[in-house]
Amino acid sequence: MKVGIVGGTGYTGVELLRLLAQHPNVELSAVTSRAEAGVAVSDLFPSLRGRIDLKFSDPTSSSLQDCDLVFFATPNGVAMQQARALLDAGVRVIDLSADFRITDVALWEKWYGMKHACPERIAQAVYGLPEVNRDKIRAAQLIANPGCYPTATQLGFLPLVEAGCVDTDHLIADAKSGVSGAGRKAENSLLFCEASDNFKAYGVPGHRHLPEIRQGLESAGNCRIGLTFVPHLTPMVRGIHTTLYARINRDEDFQALFERRYANEPFVDVLPPGSHPETRSVRAANVCRIAVHRPQDGDTLVVLSVIDNLVKGAAGQALQNMNLMFGFDECAGLAQIPVSP
Amino acid sequence: MKVGIVGGTGYTGVELLRLLAQHPNVELSAVTSRAEAGVAVSDLFPSLRGRIDLKFSDPTSSSLQDCDLVFFATPNGVAMQQARALLDAGVRVIDLSADFRITDVALWEKWYGMKHACPERIAQAVYGLPEVNRDKIRAAQLIANPGCYPTATQLGFLPLVEAGCVDTDHLIADAKSGVSGAGRKAENSLLFCEASDNFKAYGVPGHRHLPEIRQGLESAGNCRIGLTFVPHLTPMVRGIHTTLYARINRDEDFQALFERRYANEPFVDVLPPGSHPETRSVRAANVCRIAVHRPQDGDTLVVLSVIDNLVKGAAGQALQNMNLMFGFDECAGLAQIPVSP
Amino acid sequence: MKVGIVGGTGYTGVELLRLLAQHPNVELSAVTSRAEAGVAVSDLFPSLRGRIDLKFSDPTSSSLQDCDLVFFATPNGVAMQQARALLDAGVRVIDLSADFRITDVALWEKWYGMKHACPERIAQAVYGLPEVNRDKIRAAQLIANPGCYPTATQLGFLPLVEAGCVDTDHLIADAKSGVSGAGRKAENSLLFCEASDNFKAYGVPGHRHLPEIRQGLESAGNCRIGLTFVPHLTPMVRGIHTTLYARINRDEDFQALFERRYANEPFVDVLPPGSHPETRSVRAANVCRIAVHRPQDGDTLVVLSVIDNLVKGAAGQALQNMNLMFGFDECAGLAQIPVSP
Amino acid sequence: MKVGIVGGTGYTGVELLRLLAQHPNVELSAVTSRAEAGVAVSDLFPSLRGRIDLKFSDPTSSSLQDCDLVFFATPNGVAMQQARALLDAGVRVIDLSADFRITDVALWEKWYGMKHACPERIAQAVYGLPEVNRDKIRAAQLIANPGCYPTATQLGFLPLVEAGCVDTDHLIADAKSGVSGAGRKAENSLLFCEASDNFKAYGVPGHRHLPEIRQGLESAGNCRIGLTFVPHLTPMVRGIHTTLYARINRDEDFQALFERRYANEPFVDVLPPGSHPETRSVRAANVCRIAVHRPQDGDTLVVLSVIDNLVKGAAGQALQNMNLMFGFDECAGLAQIPVSP
Repeated sequence: MKVGIVGGTGYTGVELLRLLAQHPNVELSAVTSRAEAGVAVSDLFPSLRGRIDLKFSDPTSSSLQDCDLVFFATPNGVAMQQARALLDAGVRVIDLSADFRITDVALWEKWYGMKHACPERIAQAVYGLPEVNRDKIRAAQLIANPGCYPTATQLGFLPLVEAGCVDTDHLIADAKSGVSGAGRKAENSLLFCEASDNFKAYGVPGHRHLPEIRQGLESAGNCRIGLTFVPHLTPMVRGIHTTLYARINRDEDFQALFERRYANEPFVDVLPPGSHPETRSVRAANVCRIAVHRPQDGDTLVVLSVIDNLVKGAAGQALQNMNLMFGFDECAGLAQIPVSP
Repeated sequence: MKVGIVGGTGYTGVELLRLLAQHPNVELSAVTSRAEAGVAVSDLFPSLRGRIDLKFSDPTSSSLQDCDLVFFATPNGVAMQQARALLDAGVRVIDLSADFRITDVALWEKWYGMKHACPERIAQAVYGLPEVNRDKIRAAQLIANPGCYPTATQLGFLPLVEAGCVDTDHLIADAKSGVSGAGRKAENSLLFCEASDNFKAYGVPGHRHLPEIRQGLESAGNCRIGLTFVPHLTPMVRGIHTTLYARINRDEDFQALFERRYANEPFVDVLPPGSHPETRSVRAANVCRIAVHRPQDGDTLVVLSVIDNLVKGAAGQALQNMNLMFGFDECAGLAQIPVSP
Repeated sequence: MKVGIVGGTGYTGVELLRLLAQHPNVELSAVTSRAEAGVAVSDLFPSLRGRIDLKFSDPTSSSLQDCDLVFFATPNGVAMQQARALLDAGVRVIDLSADFRITDVALWEKWYGMKHACPERIAQAVYGLPEVNRDKIRAAQLIANPGCYPTATQLGFLPLVEAGCVDTDHLIADAKSGVSGAGRKAENSLLFCEASDNFKAYGVPGHRHLPEIRQGLESAGNCRIGLTFVPHLTPMVRGIHTTLYARINRDEDFQALFERRYANEPFVDVLPPGSHPETRSVRAANVCRIAVHRPQDGDTLVVLSVIDNLVKGAAGQALQNMNLMFGFDECAGLAQIPVSP
Repeated sequence: MKVGIVGGTGYTGVELLRLLAQHPNVELSAVTSRAEAGVAVSDLFPSLRGRIDLKFSDPTSSSLQDCDLVFFATPNGVAMQQARALLDAGVRVIDLSADFRITDVALWEKWYGMKHACPERIAQAVYGLPEVNRDKIRAAQLIANPGCYPTATQLGFLPLVEAGCVDTDHLIADAKSGVSGAGRKAENSLLFCEASDNFKAYGVPGHRHLPEIRQGLESAGNCRIGLTFVPHLTPMVRGIHTTLYARINRDEDFQALFERRYANEPFVDVLPPGSHPETRSVRAANVCRIAVHRPQDGDTLVVLSVIDNLVKGAAGQALQNMNLMFGFDECAGLAQIPVSP
C-alpha cells in the first residue's frame, strides 16, 4: 500500500513518519515540503536516520496521485486547495488539519478567517473519531482527522452527553497542552525561554477548537451544547490534560457508564475510581486515559482525560483511521508502549 | 527588630531568608532546624553565601523568645505545638503553615487528620490576607498566613463574591501549581523524572485548601460557598495559575469591578481586558496579576489569577504582614522586580 | 523463553518491562520487588496498563530458577548475593548493576565500598558491550551489563584507543547525563525543584564509572589509560552526551577510522563530518550516535557521543545481550524509532 | 544620571531594564527599538508592569545624545554603526555586543563575517572585565562588555594563566549554556520543543567566543594560548557552567591561588575545596562561583565556574562597569540574592 504525506516537516509530520515507518503494511512513497525539497528527511530529523530513506519532494512534482492514501499534515488552508485533485483521481485522503472538520461552511469561515476553497467536499468528509464514527470511517474517501483538544475533550464528555445526564448548556473544559500542540513554528511565544518554567492560558475569548468540540457533542447528544473552553500552554513537549466539569442533572453510576461506553475501544482506557491520569502515562502512544470523579459527592462531575497530542491527538489517530479505511487490524502499527519516564 | 525562623530548610524557609536578608529593618537572630542544627545556612543553600551568616540552631536551644517576631515555616502540626510559649511570652508570630487558618476546630481536625494542640489561640489568629484584613493584621499577635492556592483563588473570586453578582453555589477553581508548592520533600512523585514533562491533577476528591478558600469567601460574601477545587501539578518550579469559573447572575462591568476593588492594593495588578497573565510575569516577586474574561459573551465568567506560590503565596505575603504588624512601609523589602525570562 | 526480573521498580526495571513486553520471543514470568510485592506492575507504572499483567512478587517466593534468563535491575550489591544460586542452577544472568563489571576485586571493593560477596564468579562474567565482546557474549552465562557513562564513553574512544593514534595517558571525558541516570530514588538532590533549570558537575574527585571505563579502554588498547572523567547532572529525563577530548599523536582520517570501526554495528551510527548529535535523536531507542571533530585543525580531537542512558546505556543493551546469548536476531525487540520531539 | 538603552527587546535588554529600574542613581530616559517603537515596555514585558513607564522609541528620534550613558543591547554589527555619533558627542557607551571586543580588526572581521564600521574606536575601547581592567574601566568612554562564555571561562582560567603554572598551549573549556544565551530570536532550534529535554554541542569547529577568550588570557598571561572551546546548549533558561581542564606544569596550592586572586573581588566567590557549584546558586544575581579540583591527584586540574549568563555574563556586568565609570559603589543595584529554587 502506497502512502504519501503532504507537509512532512512539522511535528505532526515527523510523528506520522515515525509511526508509518513501523507499520507492517505501508510503503512510504513521497513526503513533500516546498521549503525543504531535496533535503533528506533524516537530515532534518536525525531521529529517523536509517529508518526513512526518502528526500522531501516538491508538492508539484510529487506523484501523490499514484498513492493509495495521502495524509495532509499541513497548516490550515492547504488541504482544501490541494486535496480536490487527489480526491478526483480516486486517492483517499486523511487531512490532519482543520479544513474539513466543520460541516457548517459559514461557521468554519468565521473561525478560520478565510474563504473555504473546497466546500463541495465537506459533506462527504467523515470526522475521524473512531469511537463515534467507526463504520463511516471504513467507507470514507476523505477523513477530517480531529484536533488534539477536541479528541481529549469529546472522549471525556461523550458518555455523559450521550446519556443525557448532565447540564449540556454549561459544560466547562479546562485544557492544558504541551507546546508541541502549537506546531513547529518559529514564533517568540514558543521559544524555550518563553514557554519553559511558565504557565498561561490563551485564546480565552475564543479558540478554533470550540466549534469543533460543540459540533461533535451536539451530534452525539442530539442537543444544543453550551461550552466554556479554556486552553493553556504547559511547559512540556507532549501531552494534553483536559479537566472537564459538568453539572449532574440525573444521578448515575458514572464510573460504570464510562466503562460500559468504552468497553470495546482498543485505545480508550477508563481508569479505576479515584485515579489521576498523568500525561506521561500516554507519552508517544495512541491511547486516551480517563478518570471520573464526583468531588465531595456534590452535583459537579469532574472528568480527567489525557492523550499524547501528537499521537491519539493527531498522527496516531490518523493511522487508526487508515487501518479502518484499508481493512487492517485497527491496532496495526499502534502497539507502542508509552515511554515513561 | 529581631526576627527568628522556625524550620528554615524548606522552600518557604529559604525564600523567607532571601527576602528578609534584603529587608532594611530586620535583624535575623535565629533559624532553627532539628535536622540541620549546626550547619551553616549557606552550606545548605549556596545561593545565600555571603548574605546569611547564621547556622541552623536547634529549636530547643534557640533564644526565639528574645525575638520580636517569629515565623513558622514548618510542616502542618508544628506551630500549634510550639507557638504557645512564644505567644505567652509576648512574641508575635506569623505561621506560614495551616495550623491557625481554619476557625472551626472540628473542620480543621477533619481535614488535617490530627487533634489541634492549641485550639484556644485560633480565635485570636488573624487570617493574613492583607487585601481583606489589613487593619486586623496591624494589631494582630498571631497571623495565619494564607496558603498558596487560597491566595490566588480568593483574590480572583473576591470582587465577584463581595459584589454578589455570581452564583456562589457553584464556583469552580481549576488551579495549576509549580512543584515547589509541594515543599522540599524527598518523595518519589516530586522527583525530576516523575514531575518533568508531565502534567496531572491530584487531590480531586478533596484538598485541604478547599475549606480554607470556602471560609474566606463565605466571610467576604456573607453567604454559603459551593466550590469545586481541582489542583494540578505543573512541570515548573514556581508559580500558581488559577482559572476560575463563575456563572453570572447579575450583569456588571466586571473589568471595572476588579479595577475598583484593587485600585489601592500595592500587590494586586488587574490587567487590561483581553490579557492572559503568565506565571513568569510574577516570578520571585510579591504580586498577583489578574485578568477577567467573559468568553463568547456567555453567562460564564473566567478569571485568571497568577502568583509566585513562594512569594505572594507564602514568604512574600508573610513579609507584607510583618510590615503591617510593625508599622513599616507595606512594600518594604518587597520591591523585587519579577525575574523574566 | 522464560524471563525474570529482579528489582523491577526502578527506571531500568520499567524500561526493561517496556522493551521485553514488545519482544517477540520472550515470556515474562516474574518481576520481583520486596517493597512492592503483591502490587500489580501496572498500578505502579500506569504506562504499562494493558501490556503487563504481572504482579510484583517477593524475591524469596519467586520461581526465578525456572527462568531461562534473569535480569538484575537492582542497586549495586544485590546481584552478587542473589545471582550465585541462579547461576548454580544453570540460569543465565544479565546483571545491570556494577557487581560483576570490574575484574580486579580489590579495585571494585575500593570504589564500591563493600566486600564482594561472589568473587569467584567475576572471572566468568563477560562485560556486555557487544561492539567489543560479541562472541564472548553469545557463550556467556553471566553478563556484566555496562554502565551508562561507560557505554557512551567507550564507544566514543574505542576507535582511537584501538588505533593507538592519541595520547592515552591524558584522555578527558566530560559527560552530561539526564536525571534518570541517578535512578528512582527519593533524594532531595533529584527533586524536580533541585534538578530543574539547573546544571552542575558532581563526583569530580572520583566517580565509580572511572575504573570501569579505564578497564575497558585498557583492554581495547592494550595500554595504560589515564582519564579525567567529569560527570554532570543535566535537567532532562533521558540521555547522555559525552564530549571526549584526546590529544592526537599520529595523524589519521579520523572520520574514516570511526566509520570503518562501526560499519557493521547495528546500534552505532557515525554521523557525517560537522555533525552535532542531540540526545533527543536517540530518545527511547537503542542507538549510539557519534560525531568526530578536529577544531581549528589543532592537535586536540573532540568526539561527541550520545545515547539514551536507559536504553543503549542499560535496558536496551541488556536486550541486545540477551538476543546474542539466545541466538535471536540481535535487533529483535529493539527496532523502536527514537521519539522526537 | 540619564541612561539610554539601544535595543531593549532582547533578553539582555529586559535584564538591563530589570536591574536599572532598581538602581538608586539611574534615571532611564530612552529605550529604543525599531520594531516595537510606540509600544509600552511593560506591554512587551509584563514583568515590568508598574516599574518601567517608558515606551520603546525609534532609534532615530530618540534623544540618546542627551544621555550620560548609553547601553547597546543590540545584535552584533549595530553598535559599531551607531555608537560613533554618541561617542563624538561625548556620551559614554557600554556595548554589550561583540563589536569592540577584539582589538585585531582583521581577526574580528574573519570571525564575525562583516567589515568593521568603526575601526578607529576599537583601540580606545576597554574590555569590561572588572576583575582584570578595573582602573581602565573607571576612565573609559567606551566599554566592550565581555561575552557570557568569555566571562565564565576567563574568570576560571585567569589565576592559572597569570601564575603560569599550567600548560597554556592546550587549555580545554567545555561550556554549557542555558538557552537565553542564544538571545530572543524566533529560530526553530530555540523552540521549546527542540531545546527542552535535549542536550547538544554546537559550534565545535569554531565559536566566536574563542578568539575573545584567547585574547583575554593571552593578555593576562603574556603568552600564547591554545584553547579548545566546546559550547553546549542546555535545557535551562539561565546559567553557564564551564568545566575547564588544564595540564599542571608546576605544582601549587591551587585552592589558595584562587582564593588569593579573588580575595577582594565582590562578585567572584571561590568555593571551599570539594565543592560543585550549581548554576541556580547564581540565578538572577551578579556573581561567579568557582571550584577547583585535582581529580585523583593527577596532573590535570579541573575548574568549575558558574554565572548567570544574563547578569554577570551580560547586563549585571554592564552595571558593574557603569558603577565603576561613574564613581558609584561597585555593588550599587547589584545586591540581589540569587533566586533559588
